[in-house]
Amino acid sequence: MREQLIKYIDKTDIQQMDKIKRLNLINSLQGFKSVNLIASKSLKGETNVAIFNSVTHLSSSPAMIGFIQRPTTVIRHNYTNIKETSYFTINQIQKEFIDKAHYTSAKFPDGLSEFDECGLTEEYLDDFYAPFVKESKLKIAVKYLEEHKIEANDTILVVGSIEGVYLPEDTMLDSGIVDLKKMDAVCISGLNTYYEVNKIGYFEYARPGILPVNHITKK
Amino acid sequence: MREQLIKYIDKTDIQQMDKIKRLNLINSLQGFKSVNLIASKSLKGETNVAIFNSVTHLSSSPAMIGFIQRPTTVIRHNYTNIKETSYFTINQIQKEFIDKAHYTSAKFPDGLSEFDECGLTEEYLDDFYAPFVKESKLKIAVKYLEEHKIEANDTILVVGSIEGVYLPEDTMLDSGIVDLKKMDAVCISGLNTYYEVNKIGYFEYARPGILPVNHITKK
Repeated sequence: MREQLIKYIDKTDIQQMDKIKRLNLINSLQGFKSVNLIASKSLKGETNVAIFNSVTHLSSSPAMIGFIQRPTTVIRHNYTNIKETSYFTINQIQKEFIDKAHYTSAKFPDGLSEFDECGLTEEYLDDFYAPFVKESKLKIAVKYLEEHKIEANDTILVVGSIEGVYLPEDTMLDSGIVDLKKMDAVCISGLNTYYEVNKIGYFEYARPGILPVNHITKK
Repeated sequence: MREQLIKYIDKTDIQQMDKIKRLNLINSLQGFKSVNLIASKSLKGETNVAIFNSVTHLSSSPAMIGFIQRPTTVIRHNYTNIKETSYFTINQIQKEFIDKAHYTSAKFPDGLSEFDECGLTEEYLDDFYAPFVKESKLKIAVKYLEEHKIEANDTILVVGSIEGVYLPEDTMLDSGIVDLKKMDAVCISGLNTYYEVNKIGYFEYARPGILPVNHITKK
């Protein structure tokens, strides 16, 4: 068996790396990430939608979800809208529109809505103030709760409560598990690479003394 | 074309749901998540390793990474160790050991190390205090920086600086991008379902006026 060559990169190497290379490397490290579109509307009625790969589950009771907002040294319309109105939506990205979703990361001039520029459709449901993304199959209505500024790098954890969820009837199993694969959801690594998935493992809740059995491979 | 049936679940439905069903549903909503093993060692030398699906990229310069720690109303050994010593490691989970990694989520009695119980191997590299997981192909040495308690649900965002990274030489591209697929990294949805991935899209950095081209499908 051939010994695998291991690369070690220390803190100084990282600091001295070319900016784009460092961005690509450090963004790769956590592993595969969810990709969602966060949408909002200002008090004046201007809409915004942008791609985020930092949406994170926070708790199920109360049902809470968060995302990481990059430093607000440049204007971040979504963040401003959320602070103004308290409402936003999280819309999962599926295979059919990864190109349009990726395009929302371009820095469009002020006054243009990414909905129009990227060919995505605003949708208003059940009187919720913020727009949903019509193309998305899994949509979450969220109300702003609190935020935490990370001192070391000026990013902000934005925390919200889940006010409602829309999803295709046939993707929610009796157990409550949502079959994300069935709705063609994708994930991302780094900043630019998108993946579809294949199920390789399903385990029961783990208990001491009982080695987990993989229900897919039966091993 | 058949109209797809959409299910709407509001806040009250979520609150009134059976606990396990709610846990499964709400944990599914963000989409596919990274899965990592976080390992630590107490001052007395007791080691701990546990599975987390909340590791999140925070910034590339300075290189920072975080994770969500559930409420500390029960003893969380990793968290206690991290607060005591300031050091921990994040070890990405690959296909070969998802069963052992999943098993670390069982509540083992005090005094037992999950390394022994789950058949994982402690590895010490370059004098870093906390153990790495030998089986993992992507290992990150992290130093505790700060934490933020989310008032609404008592979870904690733990923030650390990336002190060093170990990965197979042939998985880091010249661009800095890490080919996670090449090292058989996996992702998770909900709490129990693991996936391997297939690349379906690669796009350049998005700029206004230039529709993104998918370099995989050439469309």
